[in-house]
Amino acid sequence: MLFFRNDYGQGCIPEILALLEQANQVSCNGYGQDDYCEQASALIQSKMPDTEVDVHFVMSGTLTNQTILKHILRSFEAVISPDTGHIATHETGAIEATGHKVVIVPNSAGKLNAAMIRKTYNGHMLQYEHMVYPKAVYISNATELGTVYTRKELEEIRAVCDELDLYLMMDGARIGSALMSGVDYTLNDIAKWCDIFSIGGTKNGALFGEAVCISNPLLKPYFRFVMKQNGAMLAKGWLLGLQFIGLFQKDAFYKVAAHENKLAQQLQSHAMELGYPLFMKSDTNLVFLVVTPAELEYLRARVDFEIWDYWNDDIVIRFVTSFHTTPEEVEYLGVYLEEAKEKEPD
Amino acid sequence: MLFFRNDYGQGCIPEILALLEQANQVSCNGYGQDDYCEQASALIQSKMPDTEVDVHFVMSGTLTNQTILKHILRSFEAVISPDTGHIATHETGAIEATGHKVVIVPNSAGKLNAAMIRKTYNGHMLQYEHMVYPKAVYISNATELGTVYTRKELEEIRAVCDELDLYLMMDGARIGSALMSGVDYTLNDIAKWCDIFSIGGTKNGALFGEAVCISNPLLKPYFRFVMKQNGAMLAKGWLLGLQFIGLFQKDAFYKVAAHENKLAQQLQSHAMELGYPLFMKSDTNLVFLVVTPAELEYLRARVDFEIWDYWNDDIVIRFVTSFHTTPEEVEYLGVYLEEAKEKEPD
Amino acid sequence: MLFFRNDYGQGCIPEILALLEQANQVSCNGYGQDDYCEQASALIQSKMPDTEVDVHFVMSGTLTNQTILKHILRSFEAVISPDTGHIATHETGAIEATGHKVVIVPNSAGKLNAAMIRKTYNGHMLQYEHMVYPKAVYISNATELGTVYTRKELEEIRAVCDELDLYLMMDGARIGSALMSGVDYTLNDIAKWCDIFSIGGTKNGALFGEAVCISNPLLKPYFRFVMKQNGAMLAKGWLLGLQFIGLFQKDAFYKVAAHENKLAQQLQSHAMELGYPLFMKSDTNLVFLVVTPAELEYLRARVDFEIWDYWNDDIVIRFVTSFHTTPEEVEYLGVYLEEAKEKEPD
Amino acid sequence: MLFFRNDYGQGCIPEILALLEQANQVSCNGYGQDDYCEQASALIQSKMPDTEVDVHFVMSGTLTNQTILKHILRSFEAVISPDTGHIATHETGAIEATGHKVVIVPNSAGKLNAAMIRKTYNGHMLQYEHMVYPKAVYISNATELGTVYTRKELEEIRAVCDELDLYLMMDGARIGSALMSGVDYTLNDIAKWCDIFSIGGTKNGALFGEAVCISNPLLKPYFRFVMKQNGAMLAKGWLLGLQFIGLFQKDAFYKVAAHENKLAQQLQSHAMELGYPLFMKSDTNLVFLVVTPAELEYLRARVDFEIWDYWNDDIVIRFVTSFHTTPEEVEYLGVYLEEAKEKEPD
Repeated sequence: MLFFRNDYGQGCIPEILALLEQANQVSCNGYGQDDYCEQASALIQSKMPDTEVDVHFVMSGTLTNQTILKHILRSFEAVISPDTGHIATHETGAIEATGHKVVIVPNSAGKLNAAMIRKTYNGHMLQYEHMVYPKAVYISNATELGTVYTRKELEEIRAVCDELDLYLMMDGARIGSALMSGVDYTLNDIAKWCDIFSIGGTKNGALFGEAVCISNPLLKPYFRFVMKQNGAMLAKGWLLGLQFIGLFQKDAFYKVAAHENKLAQQLQSHAMELGYPLFMKSDTNLVFLVVTPAELEYLRARVDFEIWDYWNDDIVIRFVTSFHTTPEEVEYLGVYLEEAKEKEPD
Repeated sequence: MLFFRNDYGQGCIPEILALLEQANQVSCNGYGQDDYCEQASALIQSKMPDTEVDVHFVMSGTLTNQTILKHILRSFEAVISPDTGHIATHETGAIEATGHKVVIVPNSAGKLNAAMIRKTYNGHMLQYEHMVYPKAVYISNATELGTVYTRKELEEIRAVCDELDLYLMMDGARIGSALMSGVDYTLNDIAKWCDIFSIGGTKNGALFGEAVCISNPLLKPYFRFVMKQNGAMLAKGWLLGLQFIGLFQKDAFYKVAAHENKLAQQLQSHAMELGYPLFMKSDTNLVFLVVTPAELEYLRARVDFEIWDYWNDDIVIRFVTSFHTTPEEVEYLGVYLEEAKEKEPD
Repeated sequence: MLFFRNDYGQGCIPEILALLEQANQVSCNGYGQDDYCEQASALIQSKMPDTEVDVHFVMSGTLTNQTILKHILRSFEAVISPDTGHIATHETGAIEATGHKVVIVPNSAGKLNAAMIRKTYNGHMLQYEHMVYPKAVYISNATELGTVYTRKELEEIRAVCDELDLYLMMDGARIGSALMSGVDYTLNDIAKWCDIFSIGGTKNGALFGEAVCISNPLLKPYFRFVMKQNGAMLAKGWLLGLQFIGLFQKDAFYKVAAHENKLAQQLQSHAMELGYPLFMKSDTNLVFLVVTPAELEYLRARVDFEIWDYWNDDIVIRFVTSFHTTPEEVEYLGVYLEEAKEKEPD
Repeated sequence: MLFFRNDYGQGCIPEILALLEQANQVSCNGYGQDDYCEQASALIQSKMPDTEVDVHFVMSGTLTNQTILKHILRSFEAVISPDTGHIATHETGAIEATGHKVVIVPNSAGKLNAAMIRKTYNGHMLQYEHMVYPKAVYISNATELGTVYTRKELEEIRAVCDELDLYLMMDGARIGSALMSGVDYTLNDIAKWCDIFSIGGTKNGALFGEAVCISNPLLKPYFRFVMKQNGAMLAKGWLLGLQFIGLFQKDAFYKVAAHENKLAQQLQSHAMELGYPLFMKSDTNLVFLVVTPAELEYLRARVDFEIWDYWNDDIVIRFVTSFHTTPEEVEYLGVYLEEAKEKEPD
């Protein structure tokens, strides 16, 4: 059975496995205060020379989003998120569990824009203390729908955040895919635009781990207290450092993302040619197709993938490519897609 | 200046003031464990003979909603609310502050219906533990828009709650107005339909106070622990008992609500005759009109009221009648509405 | 039966009842933004001319402590309290419910001192981010044991708070009694020493209400958001303003406290003469005696009071005087104490 | 420099590394619902044949304790812990952050006993709803001081928990060391005594991971919701399964613990012979010595270890043995301890 279920279905790239083996008998300080973490931080910092960032390593994505928002928000403050945002949907209320409302805004292709942010903020100011105070903006890049923010969109969002004194947080669980999708910006730009953001390892070839990068000097102090309180500080913290050394030492991070994107884009093009409607045109490693029940049945017997949503009688399915996906697998999947179409009654 | 701003702009009905004076030199047990609270509970219980309810008195509405939901929900459970629900809008994230997500559903005239509840529940079950578990349904009756649930609507909501094993909670901040709006049900029915609900004193002629009524036996134990932890237990708790003795001893509760509704309905009819569009047709003591900027200006100089929303160039304003509103005041307001209309350029 | 159970067993002083009657038909803005609250704030402010304070009115003591600490602490920060502090014992974990640890320190006659604070702080700094960050100091004045801080003690506590950059919070539920106990300081000093503190109405002749006073300019913004979120904003907020107008317009606040203290001190002296051991020598309106089971039985049949603790076979009981306690009641209680002693077997 | 700082200073035992390599290219379901986790659960379950347990895998110890207590406690409920308990000291208020008070009791050699639990419970019942409700008991085994509960102690604690209807939770971060310290009980007994407990991998030869075992059927449902909400569900969850397969497939878990204990006990005996006072007599892999400043200086230049506490002029230091500690290292440390003693002025 072909595996296109997600980008966290296999272990890690060989570079990381090799590092784990080499480091296995080295004695380290605990809790992320070791040489490997320092080296990983320096590698990440080197990608954003224009901004001095603090880097911290956290084990998982939900824990990362939760720890960041817990850290930057005061009790009455809230975060604005598109309704498709991961924090708004698939984190079992992790943000609310820390006491904060997620103010949701209808998404536009998985994204927020500056006008939506301003309108939401202004609506809250009218009622003032009878409503939460929206203090942070959450965006994912790439988004949960595989789309990517343009430079212009991000500059406009940054501008409205400056105007309204809001923090901009980017969930970078798939930031590698975003950066390798053909955009005209880099981590160096992101560090300037965002107050705080994450660089995802889990979905980009590492065993686990997200790197939290803090650009805004006001948000730097005490982050480790919030990490520890939130259970986000790993005893053998150097394991997280190793993941990011493996990803950034020889730019495997970018190569993995480029590989994922390329295969997914081939797959998407092929599916379009075959006449499959797209639920959303993706620029990255997620592909969303609309299939009939018969097509679903045919594919499901041959491929492991996720059902994303139901559209009347049709079904939205999601294929994801990963560091370990091969061109051959994509080719096979293409054949199955063809066959599924052919079997359709006209 | 005429006062139509809200239904909590003046003190209390004379019966309650008299009780306060009489009780002022009686020594009582603290924290709601006194004879007055017992008497008030018995009076309330007498209105719902078919159900054995526990009654507790809380000082304010937000504290009531927050304490109820904190009591009935486990950490990963959430409450479904219409997007116009008080807990979803004007409580500064009080529910999220206790760790629970408010799952919002687009309202229909301020209300939820059974189909919306089922759809929301089913949507969450698809993703199961990656989403919060919707365990309670929150409705306001009368709603924040002045509308009232019908017997049929409530029976259907109760049925879907039974089917899906959900708690039904009714915010009764304006339950008096609902019951006096011509519906074919009483507190006795509400006690059967709801697992837990409140009877609002603040907006119905009392100085303050909401009576929390718990019908579901599973929800009765330990409520006072949650009250105390949540700051919702008044030292001189008998003051709350006195409010409800005043309201229920001679049915002042119903008389006040009937008075409020009658005046508001007269006002609403008059406004309609004058050609003011309604934002929402109200059955209770809230009246929502759409006015032009010129009308707004004219009225604002003469009447104290709230701006509810902006509609392109027009404005939605809200008039509220209260226990102390007089027919004369409503008449004067009618004159001002006429004058505002006449001044309009054609 | 004589009532010496607590200082919140009866309504309010006549001045406040009169104000309630007068104001009952005045139309006011809601949520504490009315003329009465403004007037009450100005009266309180006039007692502390050297400091510009923000004044807010909250309905009850637990809600006051909870709202203050929720407002001033960040998620990983904690408050240092004596183990007898109200927040540490009798608030059902209200502070922990907002996410903050109460770091308890063994009390010295109900009090903290500067050395304890420094030691606790230093102990936490050793482990740094593996422990909470103690950022606030909570003291009650008068304490839960009826004792009062001296000027010297408060100056030393202020100094250590300055040195370690800690907030000093005073729970003033019985601050009237403290100020009328013969100390050489006033509210004007307290406003200088504390970053934030409360002035208790409930236990000093009002129906309810605590005035939160914020001296530290950094802590002033956004307090009303936290109030609203925490359910601590009363719809008919002017009722709280009226309480404090009644207390401070003609210094009833101080007269009530002096009255309470005087009667309690007479009672304590008398009990000592009769040979009753004191559990704690009180300077205010709380009297703690150690009695035998036989004495307890005799007294319990004649007087309403609280059992405070058990000491092997003996019992610690608490008598409290209030605004409504009369010299005659104290005299009667003295007689019962005498009789209880006489009945003892030798 | 010799490393005796902690038992989480190196990677993992070779068995686990080998498993990681083998599994690196297998495609798995996410979030712990994979074959490896199932296999690991079955292995663990096989050690406790008399009780049907649910097994879940969590990444770190603080996250484990926090998730368990969040799951089993209602909002007003609290956990009783010795004052040396990890949740009471070194988790930055992680339990309070979820809203629950940790009720601390002075420890006896790092332990609680049945009498303390009963006394604490009874003290709370006196004040009832004005205090938190103690519903769970937290013990660590081995304790943070290296001591181990006896069968008799655990049976008595279980009995008092049955009597008072309390949950017993055991933090098993070092449960391997406890079981290999010569006690007459096994995991099978622990599963019967505890309602919920953890088996620590991190400090016993794994890269990371604690296995949460739920014995009490009432506590089994919905644990995964709380895990996800609390950020405790790893995307590549099978990595946790692999750790426990490695530990339990051929009983490496027990061998590692026996190895750690043996070396630590040799070290402790040697130190006693040399005249070093013990801070606490340990039965496991933690050794606590009291040293003079001169001894400290000498050792510190040669060995990496932790300073545990200060005792007047002396210092309590902690040595920890781990899966990778060798007999030679212990011998060298013994030599340094001798030399440090010899250098002492008489």
